[in-house]
Amino acid sequence: MHIDILTVLPELLASPLEHSIMKRAQDKGLLTVAVHHLRNWAVNEYGQVDDYQYGGGAGMVMLCEPLAKAIEALSANKKFDEIIYVTPDGRTLNQRMANTLSLKGNLLIICGHYKGIDERIREKYVTLEISIGDYVLSGGELAAAVLVDSIGRLLPGVLNDETSALTDSFQDNLLAPPVYTRPVDFEGMKVPDILMSGNHTKIEEWRYEQALQRTRDRRPDLLEE
Amino acid sequence: MHIDILTVLPELLASPLEHSIMKRAQDKGLLTVAVHHLRNWAVNEYGQVDDYQYGGGAGMVMLCEPLAKAIEALSANKKFDEIIYVTPDGRTLNQRMANTLSLKGNLLIICGHYKGIDERIREKYVTLEISIGDYVLSGGELAAAVLVDSIGRLLPGVLNDETSALTDSFQDNLLAPPVYTRPVDFEGMKVPDILMSGNHTKIEEWRYEQALQRTRDRRPDLLEE
Repeated sequence: MHIDILTVLPELLASPLEHSIMKRAQDKGLLTVAVHHLRNWAVNEYGQVDDYQYGGGAGMVMLCEPLAKAIEALSANKKFDEIIYVTPDGRTLNQRMANTLSLKGNLLIICGHYKGIDERIREKYVTLEISIGDYVLSGGELAAAVLVDSIGRLLPGVLNDETSALTDSFQDNLLAPPVYTRPVDFEGMKVPDILMSGNHTKIEEWRYEQALQRTRDRRPDLLEE
Repeated sequence: MHIDILTVLPELLASPLEHSIMKRAQDKGLLTVAVHHLRNWAVNEYGQVDDYQYGGGAGMVMLCEPLAKAIEALSANKKFDEIIYVTPDGRTLNQRMANTLSLKGNLLIICGHYKGIDERIREKYVTLEISIGDYVLSGGELAAAVLVDSIGRLLPGVLNDETSALTDSFQDNLLAPPVYTRPVDFEGMKVPDILMSGNHTKIEEWRYEQALQRTRDRRPDLLEE
């Protein structure tokens, strides 16, 4: 999989892409991520990529022309499966969407900043608008990092057995059950006996019951889907 | 506001905290963020902070002892308003929660990794469990960065007028209306006439109608709250 990211703050994305699972995915050649500075396609020598919004009001808007040029340039040698704009008014990201996107070959992610991008770029180029949640961030960069991480870790071969995604929350519409490690007694708080029984059938039953109970208590909406 | 973050991957958090609005908040002295490496409280000279989970199965679990020691040490000189664990089975973050948290003085955010932290730490120390959305990430670090950004930008004085949070999505349970900037005609696509009318009352009416329509189309659930 290849992901291009278009941003006015490429430096913000440096450390999330250079460590942990994202680094492993790239080191293994399973994922390539190219971060592009939108200023490379600025409208003038001052590097301008935004301007005041029509109608007045607080907040700058990202100009059509740099975005259009950038998208055309990046599309020249490849076909994007999706041109994604990360924005609070997009479709809310969930595990099912991450699963679907992990099957794609080429993605372009556009990070908004300031008040967002000119609506006409959304109409003309963007094929998928994604929100990572019902809250506002300083810009689209962290949302892009979250999206890349949620997708990248699902690529076959990225995770090893020890960090298998199969038992994660949401993969089966259930939250994960509680987990315990040494010591058996931590300041009087004990690990449930069942987990030390060695009876794997019973342990799996217990985990399923715990996952179901936790989902009922915390996220009954997941069980209605 | 002061935020402590406890993690096994402090380097992953470097660039999101060093740029843009988060940098400005810290430069202005409105927010301090201290990232602590959990290995400083490891159980042995090898820096061990995790172990196999009881009951078997894929994925390591973060040990009680380093977390307990770290939390105790960080609590020694201050009282945390909330000790937050970012986890997919936590309460789903929304703008209202971000608003509430932005009024606090001291927060501790614990980043999980691998299969998560031992349940007993959650029971004993954690006062608030937060999920940034219904998807799984490689670790809690990006979730912590998202949480810090969503809160930090709301601190009075962090945003200037040009990036005012008052007209953002979710602050009034509405998505933001479309925005436009120059040129008036972009490849045959025109800016709506109303935005160039100079009639601010009509412009605000139009924006409200657009915001309402977009919310009805995309997120009718927000209008039911």
